[in-house]
Amino acid sequence: MSAEPTLKIKLQIMCGEEIAMGPGKADLLDAIGREGSISAAGRALGMSYRRAWMLVDVMNRCWREPLVSTLPGGSAGSGARVTPLGRDVLQHYRLLEKQAGTARSGPDWNALGKAMLPQPKESQKG
Amino acid sequence: MSAEPTLKIKLQIMCGEEIAMGPGKADLLDAIGREGSISAAGRALGMSYRRAWMLVDVMNRCWREPLVSTLPGGSAGSGARVTPLGRDVLQHYRLLEKQAGTARSGPDWNALGKAMLPQPKESQKG
Repeated sequence: MSAEPTLKIKLQIMCGEEIAMGPGKADLLDAIGREGSISAAGRALGMSYRRAWMLVDVMNRCWREPLVSTLPGGSAGSGARVTPLGRDVLQHYRLLEKQAGTARSGPDWNALGKAMLPQPKESQKG
Repeated sequence: MSAEPTLKIKLQIMCGEEIAMGPGKADLLDAIGREGSISAAGRALGMSYRRAWMLVDVMNRCWREPLVSTLPGGSAGSGARVTPLGRDVLQHYRLLEKQAGTARSGPDWNALGKAMLPQPKESQKG
């Protein structure tokens, strides 16, 4: 079975040394929107609660307003919402991904696709 | 001092499960071209010889021909060249990066730049 060559494009928006938005954070925002809590969103993505919370913490420190709000008085499982700014940032990020994705059409990607093997050869260092 | 918002774009060309070309491998090809050996190229990039060799091994197994040739009879330090296919692949990869980089001009990146803080706020978790 031979796979099609794939071009992965990862966009990372840097705020100083922190990644203010990237593939993992965007997926987490999507999941918080669907699931309604940080813990459920993390579970849905196979991510620990601690990791999900850390990503939310970074997002909330990098933008003019928080991207995720937790419901007042809440403990870990009590619920979270994507804020209006969060929805805006996510939408612009997805459009940026789409714009960068135009690299997948054009002569350079075509030429690379033709020069690549369908699967890597075995390593001689096996 | 406030930094400009930065959009990092990483392109990874997948050959099955392996990264056939990506930012690190492209920089290594550039360095091998300049330095004339895998070990010197690795040193120039602050990369161990083992790591540089592994990246070359993956590149050489993912494309129809090797991207790097080592001089015959050679031990580790004996010299390496970027092959004609290696130069082609590198050039197309740099052009793909440029094409994806058009995401940096346009309304979405502008809007994100305005919504971002110049630096992250301090974490409340200290």
